[in-house]
Amino acid sequence: MSETKLTHKEEIRVRFNDADPMNIVWHGNYLQYMEDAREAFGEHFGLGYPAFYSAGCEIPIVNVNIDYKLPLRYGENAIVEAEFVDTIAAKIVFNYKIYRSSDGKLAAVGQTTQVMIDKDTKELALIVPKFYQKWKNKYLNS
Amino acid sequence: MSETKLTHKEEIRVRFNDADPMNIVWHGNYLQYMEDAREAFGEHFGLGYPAFYSAGCEIPIVNVNIDYKLPLRYGENAIVEAEFVDTIAAKIVFNYKIYRSSDGKLAAVGQTTQVMIDKDTKELALIVPKFYQKWKNKYLNS
Amino acid sequence: MSETKLTHKEEIRVRFNDADPMNIVWHGNYLQYMEDAREAFGEHFGLGYPAFYSAGCEIPIVNVNIDYKLPLRYGENAIVEAEFVDTIAAKIVFNYKIYRSSDGKLAAVGQTTQVMIDKDTKELALIVPKFYQKWKNKYLNS
Amino acid sequence: MSETKLTHKEEIRVRFNDADPMNIVWHGNYLQYMEDAREAFGEHFGLGYPAFYSAGCEIPIVNVNIDYKLPLRYGENAIVEAEFVDTIAAKIVFNYKIYRSSDGKLAAVGQTTQVMIDKDTKELALIVPKFYQKWKNKYLNS
Repeated sequence: MSETKLTHKEEIRVRFNDADPMNIVWHGNYLQYMEDAREAFGEHFGLGYPAFYSAGCEIPIVNVNIDYKLPLRYGENAIVEAEFVDTIAAKIVFNYKIYRSSDGKLAAVGQTTQVMIDKDTKELALIVPKFYQKWKNKYLNS
Repeated sequence: MSETKLTHKEEIRVRFNDADPMNIVWHGNYLQYMEDAREAFGEHFGLGYPAFYSAGCEIPIVNVNIDYKLPLRYGENAIVEAEFVDTIAAKIVFNYKIYRSSDGKLAAVGQTTQVMIDKDTKELALIVPKFYQKWKNKYLNS
Repeated sequence: MSETKLTHKEEIRVRFNDADPMNIVWHGNYLQYMEDAREAFGEHFGLGYPAFYSAGCEIPIVNVNIDYKLPLRYGENAIVEAEFVDTIAAKIVFNYKIYRSSDGKLAAVGQTTQVMIDKDTKELALIVPKFYQKWKNKYLNS
Repeated sequence: MSETKLTHKEEIRVRFNDADPMNIVWHGNYLQYMEDAREAFGEHFGLGYPAFYSAGCEIPIVNVNIDYKLPLRYGENAIVEAEFVDTIAAKIVFNYKIYRSSDGKLAAVGQTTQVMIDKDTKELALIVPKFYQKWKNKYLNS
């Protein structure tokens, strides 16, 4: 059986102000870079906040995990690959690989998990919205 | 004639992440420190966002001016004095003095100007809300 | 056998600017709150960056994990408990519990892992600095 | 007499996290957008931090002034025009116009002033570095 890997790469400028007095990007800023890549994925494949919001859902993040491997510095860019992880649960999971533009080395890997909640009742959605299942059928044959 | 100077001092911790690779606080963060001091003033004297919002007003900032004199560093605190500037216009003006805790020297001075807008119509308020005039009468005899 | 749990609680103000258009604290800001609590722990128990730096070590973060349970909002404080996790490895591990001041409920739990690297060679330290072992003997009987 | 106006325009994405609970970009973030535009100008015309640093100078900001006219929102971009202001003083002055991409309207205008200080002595430079005068000759005939 073939596996469909759905990924999007985004190059993100490291701002002067993203780096700390050790001259490396402060660890908390990686969540911003991962969000940038996730949103770019969403715009590219039509799976952003607006699509879920129109379907009556908010999609808050319930887990973040990051492994930091090499420092990022001001003067180079972060190249962030966001990979959609298929799951049968009513969740949205992305894996991330963050590379440094200066030498192409892997600086960090991460994962985010989002759930879907009804924007009015704030109750957790246990089954996925129809548009999301259609989206998955289209892109993942799942 | 006596002048009433209404001020409030707030000590604000400089976060590691507030400093940049030159090891000095990034200039944009001073707006955060000034906001912290303005909010502390508001809580102390009963003139914060909630008071205006209850009176039907939003109070967006329309001007910021800052003169930077000496650098602030991680490991010291910013001591920010916010001074309410009395004006007959329908505006809220604060002057700020930012001192370094390490040597008490003046690191920066600034000013913010806010206007009052009707939160529903988004129109500029040309006369001040009653509660605000009462507040001024109480604290400034103006 | 008794267990020594070494914890420190820090109350952290949620800034207006920490909240996003959904009116909840942006998920990336929790790393800042956890760092604030970790630094407060370090100041309280004498285990901060300066102590390690004096011993020739940098202590970069190599892993962050956070589970988000309930939203934090502007107008309430985050109460962050940092708990030192004893380990025989040359690592510094903290567990965090983040509570909302408004109702005392648990908003998030997290963990950070730091390694020790020689500040000159940038090589990973495989055995812990002497001061750190002494510190552990004093506080943890380990 | 002809006037040379040296400008550079940069389109900057408004991040979700740049907007506050009022759903408008927090006023402090405009300093980041202005810095982004100033750095883009510097890269385009060869007048960035690295050029000054190589010439032995740091160029700290000593004044910022911003007039806010219309709100910026998440979902639109900021288009920031940075204009180099010629001056005979040993200063670097930029004017900024910040437009909203959604309707092209002017959202804010600003100005920054930087001085040149010797990176070793930290003394203020009273005459400009040679490379800077050459740069001005080339681009501004001044």
